[in-house]
Amino acid sequence: MHRFPIRVYYEDTDMGGVVYYANYLRFIERARSDWVRNLGNDQNAMRADGLIWVVQRVEADYRLPARFDDELLIETEVLKVSPARLIMGQRVMRAEVEIFRAKVTVACVTAEGKPRRLPAEIRALS
Amino acid sequence: MHRFPIRVYYEDTDMGGVVYYANYLRFIERARSDWVRNLGNDQNAMRADGLIWVVQRVEADYRLPARFDDELLIETEVLKVSPARLIMGQRVMRAEVEIFRAKVTVACVTAEGKPRRLPAEIRALS
Amino acid sequence: MHRFPIRVYYEDTDMGGVVYYANYLRFIERARSDWVRNLGNDQNAMRADGLIWVVQRVEADYRLPARFDDELLIETEVLKVSPARLIMGQRVMRAEVEIFRAKVTVACVTAEGKPRRLPAEIRALS
Amino acid sequence: MHRFPIRVYYEDTDMGGVVYYANYLRFIERARSDWVRNLGNDQNAMRADGLIWVVQRVEADYRLPARFDDELLIETEVLKVSPARLIMGQRVMRAEVEIFRAKVTVACVTAEGKPRRLPAEIRALS
Repeated sequence: MHRFPIRVYYEDTDMGGVVYYANYLRFIERARSDWVRNLGNDQNAMRADGLIWVVQRVEADYRLPARFDDELLIETEVLKVSPARLIMGQRVMRAEVEIFRAKVTVACVTAEGKPRRLPAEIRALS
Repeated sequence: MHRFPIRVYYEDTDMGGVVYYANYLRFIERARSDWVRNLGNDQNAMRADGLIWVVQRVEADYRLPARFDDELLIETEVLKVSPARLIMGQRVMRAEVEIFRAKVTVACVTAEGKPRRLPAEIRALS
Repeated sequence: MHRFPIRVYYEDTDMGGVVYYANYLRFIERARSDWVRNLGNDQNAMRADGLIWVVQRVEADYRLPARFDDELLIETEVLKVSPARLIMGQRVMRAEVEIFRAKVTVACVTAEGKPRRLPAEIRALS
Repeated sequence: MHRFPIRVYYEDTDMGGVVYYANYLRFIERARSDWVRNLGNDQNAMRADGLIWVVQRVEADYRLPARFDDELLIETEVLKVSPARLIMGQRVMRAEVEIFRAKVTVACVTAEGKPRRLPAEIRALS
């Protein structure tokens, strides 16, 4: 289980006084970027090789609102790895309470959008 | 079917050269805001009454990337209305091609997060 | 004088109930993109040629807050054009009232950040 | 001198491959929020009292681009404090190199936009 801390800033909130719903996708992407960096995956090098990560599917459940100054913890785990696709489970926690949960499917593509095998360090997780 | 045009600007793209995945949720929220405004729902008045719309669940499929300057059309339709919950189907089209699709469940809550019945003009759709 | 309409959506607001201060820079960039497109400048083609627009300096004055659902008009005019630099005056208006004003200096650079002459259609404005 | 670390994520970049210009304002706002929190200023409590911080003016100079995965340090210092207004100097550094610099004027207002004296813990800095 990978854990990644986030604090909520003004930019993340909306006029409802809570975190805007799209911004949870920003939060969990930061956690995924940290997770692949820790596995030795360099997204700048991948991009220089003409490969990028793309998100194919997101299923997101919003349980409780997060507010300004909240300290959140993002938990990320691998649900499934195939040669071409990685499915991750991600949760946003405040203290011991889950406030958001998502299942995210990602893949690797060329600049023209053609699918490629995942980097070796990710396939090794299967 | 509600239709809402969007153009892709610099702010929407990321270093992959395409629209950042979280920004599709911004796009489809603009379309939903336009749709409820057309139905006579005033979100400023609701908020003055202590009520806000919240998203409970999103299922999103990313089919093709959108790029800078693309002209997109967001199609929104009601899939299901109950007293407490509204489920909408939304698609982002470029010309006749679907590039993104989402199923979005929304509800109304008080500032304290307590669920309330949907506004009458929305319940009338059921 | 170039005029460009904007509507304020949820994504633009923050917990203060008004438009988040950084988002005015997104608004005025949309207007600049529309302005250069109208002049025949294709930013996708420029990028394929290895050139991008960069902002060098912004002076911004926040006069009045904008709120959800506000219909704003962005006025853009050229203040000064030199071979390497363009200075623009931009104002965000609500009805006849100015709510934001900025002076923005932009230039063209290569992917490595080296300065280049502005596109011919822009230099022609001097 | 207040120092605040930032890492650049995908969400911060644009199709130019660098940090989008408006996002520096998000970065320096995070640093200001951290700075006032350290001084004992609770923005949630202020808001409950009907007061919010607003930005009145920004002068920003963009010196060098920041890129994905960059680790940046934001330096914040007080340039001037008056009863109604605070002027801060903020710099974004990468290693020892300044890549962005801004002078930001902030004030406190009521929900109706009326100016109020700055919180005591801020006025004490003068």
